[in-house]
Amino acid sequence: MSASTPPEITPIEREQRLYERVADKILTLIEDGAWRPGDRLPPERELAQGFGVSRTVVREAVKVLEARGILESITGSGVYVRGPDSSLVSQSLQTYLQLLPDENTEFKIAEIRRVLEGEIAALAALRATPEQRRELQTIYAEMQHYAGSARTLADLDFRFHLALAHATHNDLFSVLLTPLMEQLREYFLVNWDNYGGPLEPVFEQHKAILDAVCSGDAEGARRAMIEHLAFSEKLMRERVAEKARTRA
Amino acid sequence: MSASTPPEITPIEREQRLYERVADKILTLIEDGAWRPGDRLPPERELAQGFGVSRTVVREAVKVLEARGILESITGSGVYVRGPDSSLVSQSLQTYLQLLPDENTEFKIAEIRRVLEGEIAALAALRATPEQRRELQTIYAEMQHYAGSARTLADLDFRFHLALAHATHNDLFSVLLTPLMEQLREYFLVNWDNYGGPLEPVFEQHKAILDAVCSGDAEGARRAMIEHLAFSEKLMRERVAEKARTRA
Repeated sequence: MSASTPPEITPIEREQRLYERVADKILTLIEDGAWRPGDRLPPERELAQGFGVSRTVVREAVKVLEARGILESITGSGVYVRGPDSSLVSQSLQTYLQLLPDENTEFKIAEIRRVLEGEIAALAALRATPEQRRELQTIYAEMQHYAGSARTLADLDFRFHLALAHATHNDLFSVLLTPLMEQLREYFLVNWDNYGGPLEPVFEQHKAILDAVCSGDAEGARRAMIEHLAFSEKLMRERVAEKARTRA
Repeated sequence: MSASTPPEITPIEREQRLYERVADKILTLIEDGAWRPGDRLPPERELAQGFGVSRTVVREAVKVLEARGILESITGSGVYVRGPDSSLVSQSLQTYLQLLPDENTEFKIAEIRRVLEGEIAALAALRATPEQRRELQTIYAEMQHYAGSARTLADLDFRFHLALAHATHNDLFSVLLTPLMEQLREYFLVNWDNYGGPLEPVFEQHKAILDAVCSGDAEGARRAMIEHLAFSEKLMRERVAEKARTRA
């Protein structure tokens, strides 16, 4: 290095690395079962002594784990280990999708939905409880009742698909599906709003899924769902082509 | 309220609500495209003036968005909007799975894997580039070479499945699959380690997937993958039953 270029002096960031290490340590203890969901962590002072760091470092570590949804500070009571929270998974998946620069994101999502929801419909046909079947029937009846309101229809459509996911009794299906659908919420609304064609085919598609689920016909439910999603995807493609034309 | 019970006095948490609102505001601006991945945010002082809050509040908001993987502080340079980071999705999904008290989590994951990976194999057969086919062949050859080492076999097995996910050219498949597989990593290792039977069937299963993908046979690849996962799940069930026996 020549004498004329001054050496680059930057802060060493020791504290940052330290609180991240403490956060990792706390997370490991939780994962190993030393602290379980619902447990209160020892007081800050004790944690600082135990980890051999300052109380400031402990406070930073707790804040990081709070932002990640693992800990929860309750004022006047203490810091608690949270239970599993699927909304945080949804949030991170949605943030990821929102930051994706890819123009084809909606079609990538549609491809995943086809796979997940085909299986969801089939499993719902096999596993839905009588209450869950009744709930699906209620949502479908409401869809017909609110045929004039795009926003309400979009919401009911959304609820119909999530109710099917719940009926699989495997919560991972709704954990994965919810953020994917949230990301398409705008499309749901635009589709229902700008949808010029007759509503009958869309209602018929939902009715076909509903009937197959209620009669326990897994393969019929899968087929009906895949046909319905193919129809939605076609609308989405038309919408995208239209947008491109408007821009041109 | 009777005079004998003292009023409950707790801090009002005004600051916390404020920094969360500022964080939401920043996130909305990013989502709306005002600041894009790679952009540097205005200086703290300017943000504080713009939002009408103290610099401390801005600093807290930035810290929360850093923990969520949306912003990145670079010392001496500023605060930047990060690109989409799938590792944060993986992290949150894994945290969720780790906190789940459910004993059947591994079988719920296996159910999702069957759906995702069946489609992954089929799409890989249709979309894999020549390089991606060669990579799969290389991984398979290494698996046979390291037949004696459970840990290496488990890693190669892992890489084989993720390479297939990449070959779909839809990054959402690997974003969803990676944390599910990470969560089963222990099982992978235990399966390869304690696996008393001959290795041939396991190799043959991978070979069947590989051959179908390399010859562009989508349905064959799907079938081979589903057979392979059914075999893995059987091993997993035996392992769980064994554990239950040992405990009894």
